Amino acid sequence: MHAIKSSLPDTATKIVGEALQGGLIDLIDLSLIAKQTHWNIVGPRFRSIHFQLDDVVSTARSHSDTVAERASALGISPDGRATTVATHTGIAKVADGWQQDTQAVRTMVDALSAVIVRMRERMDETGPVDRVTEDIFIQITKDLEKHCWMFQAENGG
Amino acid sequence: MHAIKSSLPDTATKIVGEALQGGLIDLIDLSLIAKQTHWNIVGPRFRSIHFQLDDVVSTARSHSDTVAERASALGISPDGRATTVATHTGIAKVADGWQQDTQAVRTMVDALSAVIVRMRERMDETGPVDRVTEDIFIQITKDLEKHCWMFQAENGG
Amino acid sequence: MHAIKSSLPDTATKIVGEALQGGLIDLIDLSLIAKQTHWNIVGPRFRSIHFQLDDVVSTARSHSDTVAERASALGISPDGRATTVATHTGIAKVADGWQQDTQAVRTMVDALSAVIVRMRERMDETGPVDRVTEDIFIQITKDLEKHCWMFQAENGG
Amino acid sequence: MHAIKSSLPDTATKIVGEALQGGLIDLIDLSLIAKQTHWNIVGPRFRSIHFQLDDVVSTARSHSDTVAERASALGISPDGRATTVATHTGIAKVADGWQQDTQAVRTMVDALSAVIVRMRERMDETGPVDRVTEDIFIQITKDLEKHCWMFQAENGG
Amino acid sequence: MHAIKSSLPDTATKIVGEALQGGLIDLIDLSLIAKQTHWNIVGPRFRSIHFQLDDVVSTARSHSDTVAERASALGISPDGRATTVATHTGIAKVADGWQQDTQAVRTMVDALSAVIVRMRERMDETGPVDRVTEDIFIQITKDLEKHCWMFQAENGG
Amino acid sequence: MHAIKSSLPDTATKIVGEALQGGLIDLIDLSLIAKQTHWNIVGPRFRSIHFQLDDVVSTARSHSDTVAERASALGISPDGRATTVATHTGIAKVADGWQQDTQAVRTMVDALSAVIVRMRERMDETGPVDRVTEDIFIQITKDLEKHCWMFQAENGG
Amino acid sequence: MHAIKSSLPDTATKIVGEALQGGLIDLIDLSLIAKQTHWNIVGPRFRSIHFQLDDVVSTARSHSDTVAERASALGISPDGRATTVATHTGIAKVADGWQQDTQAVRTMVDALSAVIVRMRERMDETGPVDRVTEDIFIQITKDLEKHCWMFQAENGG
Amino acid sequence: MHAIKSSLPDTATKIVGEALQGGLIDLIDLSLIAKQTHWNIVGPRFRSIHFQLDDVVSTARSHSDTVAERASALGISPDGRATTVATHTGIAKVADGWQQDTQAVRTMVDALSAVIVRMRERMDETGPVDRVTEDIFIQITKDLEKHCWMFQAENGG
Amino acid sequence: MHAIKSSLPDTATKIVGEALQGGLIDLIDLSLIAKQTHWNIVGPRFRSIHFQLDDVVSTARSHSDTVAERASALGISPDGRATTVATHTGIAKVADGWQQDTQAVRTMVDALSAVIVRMRERMDETGPVDRVTEDIFIQITKDLEKHCWMFQAENGG
Amino acid sequence: MHAIKSSLPDTATKIVGEALQGGLIDLIDLSLIAKQTHWNIVGPRFRSIHFQLDDVVSTARSHSDTVAERASALGISPDGRATTVATHTGIAKVADGWQQDTQAVRTMVDALSAVIVRMRERMDETGPVDRVTEDIFIQITKDLEKHCWMFQAENGG
Amino acid sequence: MHAIKSSLPDTATKIVGEALQGGLIDLIDLSLIAKQTHWNIVGPRFRSIHFQLDDVVSTARSHSDTVAERASALGISPDGRATTVATHTGIAKVADGWQQDTQAVRTMVDALSAVIVRMRERMDETGPVDRVTEDIFIQITKDLEKHCWMFQAENGG
Amino acid sequence: MHAIKSSLPDTATKIVGEALQGGLIDLIDLSLIAKQTHWNIVGPRFRSIHFQLDDVVSTARSHSDTVAERASALGISPDGRATTVATHTGIAKVADGWQQDTQAVRTMVDALSAVIVRMRERMDETGPVDRVTEDIFIQITKDLEKHCWMFQAENGG
Repeated sequence: MHAIKSSLPDTATKIVGEALQGGLIDLIDLSLIAKQTHWNIVGPRFRSIHFQLDDVVSTARSHSDTVAERASALGISPDGRATTVATHTGIAKVADGWQQDTQAVRTMVDALSAVIVRMRERMDETGPVDRVTEDIFIQITKDLEKHCWMFQAENGG
Repeated sequence: MHAIKSSLPDTATKIVGEALQGGLIDLIDLSLIAKQTHWNIVGPRFRSIHFQLDDVVSTARSHSDTVAERASALGISPDGRATTVATHTGIAKVADGWQQDTQAVRTMVDALSAVIVRMRERMDETGPVDRVTEDIFIQITKDLEKHCWMFQAENGG
Repeated sequence: MHAIKSSLPDTATKIVGEALQGGLIDLIDLSLIAKQTHWNIVGPRFRSIHFQLDDVVSTARSHSDTVAERASALGISPDGRATTVATHTGIAKVADGWQQDTQAVRTMVDALSAVIVRMRERMDETGPVDRVTEDIFIQITKDLEKHCWMFQAENGG
Repeated sequence: MHAIKSSLPDTATKIVGEALQGGLIDLIDLSLIAKQTHWNIVGPRFRSIHFQLDDVVSTARSHSDTVAERASALGISPDGRATTVATHTGIAKVADGWQQDTQAVRTMVDALSAVIVRMRERMDETGPVDRVTEDIFIQITKDLEKHCWMFQAENGG
Repeated sequence: MHAIKSSLPDTATKIVGEALQGGLIDLIDLSLIAKQTHWNIVGPRFRSIHFQLDDVVSTARSHSDTVAERASALGISPDGRATTVATHTGIAKVADGWQQDTQAVRTMVDALSAVIVRMRERMDETGPVDRVTEDIFIQITKDLEKHCWMFQAENGG
Repeated sequence: MHAIKSSLPDTATKIVGEALQGGLIDLIDLSLIAKQTHWNIVGPRFRSIHFQLDDVVSTARSHSDTVAERASALGISPDGRATTVATHTGIAKVADGWQQDTQAVRTMVDALSAVIVRMRERMDETGPVDRVTEDIFIQITKDLEKHCWMFQAENGG
Repeated sequence: MHAIKSSLPDTATKIVGEALQGGLIDLIDLSLIAKQTHWNIVGPRFRSIHFQLDDVVSTARSHSDTVAERASALGISPDGRATTVATHTGIAKVADGWQQDTQAVRTMVDALSAVIVRMRERMDETGPVDRVTEDIFIQITKDLEKHCWMFQAENGG
Repeated sequence: MHAIKSSLPDTATKIVGEALQGGLIDLIDLSLIAKQTHWNIVGPRFRSIHFQLDDVVSTARSHSDTVAERASALGISPDGRATTVATHTGIAKVADGWQQDTQAVRTMVDALSAVIVRMRERMDETGPVDRVTEDIFIQITKDLEKHCWMFQAENGG
Repeated sequence: MHAIKSSLPDTATKIVGEALQGGLIDLIDLSLIAKQTHWNIVGPRFRSIHFQLDDVVSTARSHSDTVAERASALGISPDGRATTVATHTGIAKVADGWQQDTQAVRTMVDALSAVIVRMRERMDETGPVDRVTEDIFIQITKDLEKHCWMFQAENGG
Repeated sequence: MHAIKSSLPDTATKIVGEALQGGLIDLIDLSLIAKQTHWNIVGPRFRSIHFQLDDVVSTARSHSDTVAERASALGISPDGRATTVATHTGIAKVADGWQQDTQAVRTMVDALSAVIVRMRERMDETGPVDRVTEDIFIQITKDLEKHCWMFQAENGG
Repeated sequence: MHAIKSSLPDTATKIVGEALQGGLIDLIDLSLIAKQTHWNIVGPRFRSIHFQLDDVVSTARSHSDTVAERASALGISPDGRATTVATHTGIAKVADGWQQDTQAVRTMVDALSAVIVRMRERMDETGPVDRVTEDIFIQITKDLEKHCWMFQAENGG
Repeated sequence: MHAIKSSLPDTATKIVGEALQGGLIDLIDLSLIAKQTHWNIVGPRFRSIHFQLDDVVSTARSHSDTVAERASALGISPDGRATTVATHTGIAKVADGWQQDTQAVRTMVDALSAVIVRMRERMDETGPVDRVTEDIFIQITKDLEKHCWMFQAENGG
């Protein structure tokens, strides 16, 4: 069943498809990690970071929808199931249990930094074959780098 | 680090904690499955079911937040990480690739039915030890049974 | 045609089904009576009670939808047709023609009181077999008892 | 008790009063039938028609309020009680139980068509004696004919 | 300076122009009288009627703008200056000083009744020469008759 | 394929159908001309008229939808395709290229005046056979005559 | 009937009462004059000044309500009837008929300037006896002087 | 611990501090009394006064926040604890139990009148030493005198 | 004067009445303590906790209204006057003067914990005699336990 | 009359101008075709596709405004008149009369596919000479490819 | 070119003009400094103070507009150009580069304190010659003193 | 103190940092100049251009925030202090005092044109080293070129 036709040539579709599938997994995992930290954080900055983490969740959920629907629009079936996320995510597993706020911030800087590197690679790979998909990775990178600055600034000084 | 104190006795906390952790996993997986279907559905009912699936996502996300924060409020660290979800979910794995709309509806009836049975058990288990947590499972069951009716009605007749 | 499956055992479904069907009829009739009074009231409190009656209409319409959709969700086809309402309502027939405001308030206290008694019975009957349906009757009773107080207070002193 | 004075001569008031009372009954019954179908519909178009029926409910409720208050404004006490509706409605009784979507659409086309004919007659009868009431029937007919087209289009082709 | 051209013949323009100019004056005076009463009312129904009067102000201001701009659109310069209103209004002068609520309601029934008669005459005069202007008077009459009912109902019974 | 049934007799349907189809074409062309001027206007009144033109676009688009859906509701398939508009519009072709603001205002007065004459004819033709459609032309004429006054006033004095 | 008691001594009440009654008349007349000009203005600045005049109407209506209710709150019955306005306004009568935009701007500068002088006197008179009423005149003056600047700027250069 | 520095000299700070602390207590007690009456009122004006009382609550709560934060801004720790309110309020204790509406209105006139006198004294005391704080008391007095008029008008005539 | 009738038997009404009256006092005092801390807090977490405290105020005010109106609805006159609160509150008196943020958080954990214990007792006492009132205490407990977790998390780790 | 200066060199302006003019025509025609189908569609998916078509209209209208104003901003007068659209559109003419829903979906897939190819060419042509214009075509392509997927999915499986 | 006339005498205009021009410069510089700190702050309170600084920006921008337009309204041309701000500001130059949060709070306390002293002088100078302008400085001082308290509280204890 | 790490190599960071710092200064100065003109403009187009200038202010403020936070996100401390703006802006100093509207439009065309040239250079410089930053300059250029067209159109013809 080949439901949807791509408006790109086959090789381009393949490159773009891998970048989108990878980006989808990273964004779903980022949203789960940010929620996990949102629920488990303790310490004097609890309230402020608790909300900051929901901003990341919101960014990650919104971009994951864009990325998955972009894949569909190019005839590539996206896969965002739990086992796929657990197996293929580019983010290191985070600890379970309560997290001190200072540690929570470091967790987010690490997770965001890891995803940013991979999103920049996807931006570079897709640019020559599909400017539309590249633009999606530009917007994602812009937002993630802003979040990453804000968490660095939290622990900075 | 015992960050948060429970306002319940220890045995009650243990019963309630397991019910909430189980509910959290089911709700996160339900949201991922509904999104997966939202992106992969094809067929003459595409648009209608595409939106209906996002209603499920919205319900599942909202209740998963309530459940996890209820656990935190009782001093139980919730665990909603991808690997935990992939390992402990009570919903059968869904197929990858495009899904015909009729099949998509069946997938959702199956997933919702499986979660409803488990939520009713959690409602029964927590009632005698914490009426507050029981009320959360009552609201979840109410919403999930409504969604389940709507998907059954879609394929019914 | 057995379109929708109940998640309750058969006897429970029967008890809950009768309670919901009865509640639906009472709520539809309550909405019609409140509108009837809304249009026919005269006297120095016209404007104030005219609006108060629309608050009852709004409550009754919203709960009647919840009750009917709860029945559907349990595989019980709800019946809210005019003849069914006219035949099975638990509220005494109200007079036609213009109504003096003092009389209008009494009409509403009587109608609300009659429905409250029946809703409390439904709450008691459904509680042991379905906590979800019981919760719906708890919310209905809460709202109707609040409305009933406000009309009693209007004529009180 | 002659609470409200009409700004029309007696014969005009009588003609207009009968038209408004008849219109009120039809609109209340239409709203009850649309809700009945909204709750009992099953089939592949469930979600789409379920919402479409609530648009009819909303139109019928809003216009019934306008019609009844127009009667009051002309000194004619409106009667919208359940037994009056059950006895005097111009719409044929609809079946109970679940309704297949195709059948539900036909039910609505029939109900709307029956009401439209009667509304057009009321428009013609009231025009010569009260342009204001006629305008209300013009707006009602406009909205009902639009709904009727949409249901015809659903089963059309 | 003949700034704006009418899309009607000259005799029609003259008939319509007089109706609109007369309607404008009545509506401005109605808004001033309703505000006067809004500020001076006392008695047990103060708050309820105080707000009801602002509903009349809002109706009168909105329709006076429509009427004046309709005149302009037909090339007839509207005149809504204070002295023109004071000289040509069709409403009897209201008393100064505080007004008991029962009296205030009578004042409004009288003022609204006087304007309704004149608006119905304008509706009849303009109908044969301009259906567009007639429609404006139909809407005005509809709203004023509704307000008039509500004030009659206040003192009714 | 006779998809939708008219609630009017055949001759009435034919008269009304021609009026609605003609009105649709004029309104679509009016929206295109107003947009064309919106983009090409230059001169000291640029900003003010630029916005005023979008008010016309908004009016024309909204009424064209009403007119087309009224045709559908009467079983008449509406035709609003580009070639049909280009061939049958009642508005003279406007110049291409930048337009000085004074000229732009004249263009709009001419276009609106031409359409108003035709809409008044349609109002007269449809009145005797369908009061509902007549009412739609009354509302259109009211709005267009208001826009026409405003543009005349712009160049007036 | 001495309905409302003043919280000020008698002489203060008298001074404040005259200032408020005078301010009320000027503000009502200002609102009527601004509306008169809003409807009758023609010329290349029609649209811009048409809206600017409604800003004045809005300011004048809002402040007139504050001023009249302040009078009531101090036990002084306010008088805003048409004949009172026509007789006691401090603004010179404006011309009837269409007004060229440049002239309209001058009309508003003159009207606003006349009212500002009187409002400043009321501010000075009430300050020593009631700081609350003084503050109301300060806010009025602030808003009127801002409107006056904007109309001067329109004709300035 | 001298946490916050005042921008006023010491004697001014002392005068202003006492006025603000006194104002805070009166406003909190006023909000509690208005709520007490809101819950206990009975009689034919129940609904109207029930809402009017919530307007007072809203005013009192909003101003109490402004007053307390103004104290903090001047380095004066505000004290709004229950025992402080119970001990230092300037309003006479109100009766417990249900209150007839006529009596409820008198209760509010008395409470508001008592607070207004004290707020005017605070306005006079603070004016010479801090115009900013004086302005806060001017706004409070303006709102309370408006509420007091409305309750007087309720029982007036 | 027995204004309002209870829909419960006398013994049930007595039990429920005491629980509601006690709950009302605790919630009003909680709102006053949270505001007191909101105004007096200092330290590096000032802004974050300042807002968090207003969330508690908002919760406490909203539930206190529900509780008091539930009492009224059951014919029990609620008492929320300042002296009643000061005498019967279940929360220990808080210190006056500025509060360091760490201390402020401890104050709130103590106050919330004390109220939660009492609310759970009320939930248990009312459950067997009135499920509707029990549900109100379930919702209150749910919200207070969530706030209590958030303050514990602030000082936790 | 060379009203607006381009910030690009002449050759770049020429390339960009042709791309924008072509894009404008395609988008206007797309909006007319989507509306045409919106009015003429019949069949079991009527309601769902009826709304989906309006999403396309909304996208096409919004982008056509962006494209035309971008042309103006570069000193190129845009041409969106009916005859220009009818003559230069890149979309094949659609059939008149009622359209079965399955056929309507195919019509939209064809129209969108045709426009997407041309928009991608414009994206490629403008990229080297104006990144700003290229970005506009990227956004258009992104949206159109998403719409195209949704219509393909509708008929897919 | 003397475009705008003052409603004040010449000496008053001069005093008020200097106060407004000085206030404008301070407020613009305050907005630039708050933004500078908003972008450069680092440390554990980053997020909380980052938002707090934008509250200051918002206050400063809003008041600077009021101040400048008040000057214009009195015929005094305001000067808010970058070089004027850089030369005449009353706030000491802030350091460049990243700022630790504790230091950022001190920077804002210093900047706000400096501006408050000057605004109080302007309030005193303008009071005797123009109560309207004085009121503007009262509102500015009120807001700045509140912001200053909040930053002091942040570093307090 | 090296607070924030760049996700770019050092040379790229340097190029991007200079472009962002330059862009920030230009945008802040543009916002100050547009406000200066907003306050000082006189002439027949006062109101229209007064609002148009605030649209520029809004664009400039919003983009300056994006640009500065992008710099922070790349570890480059942004500098937007008044003296930096005064010294390094790329826009020529504007005249002080009242400005005739025609001159004001020319001022804005000059200022916008100067900034557009520099923004296009920054777009070209950053593109090869950071597509994310390039995209920010593309959006800025798009908006500024649209504003520049609108001001050119104002004086055009």
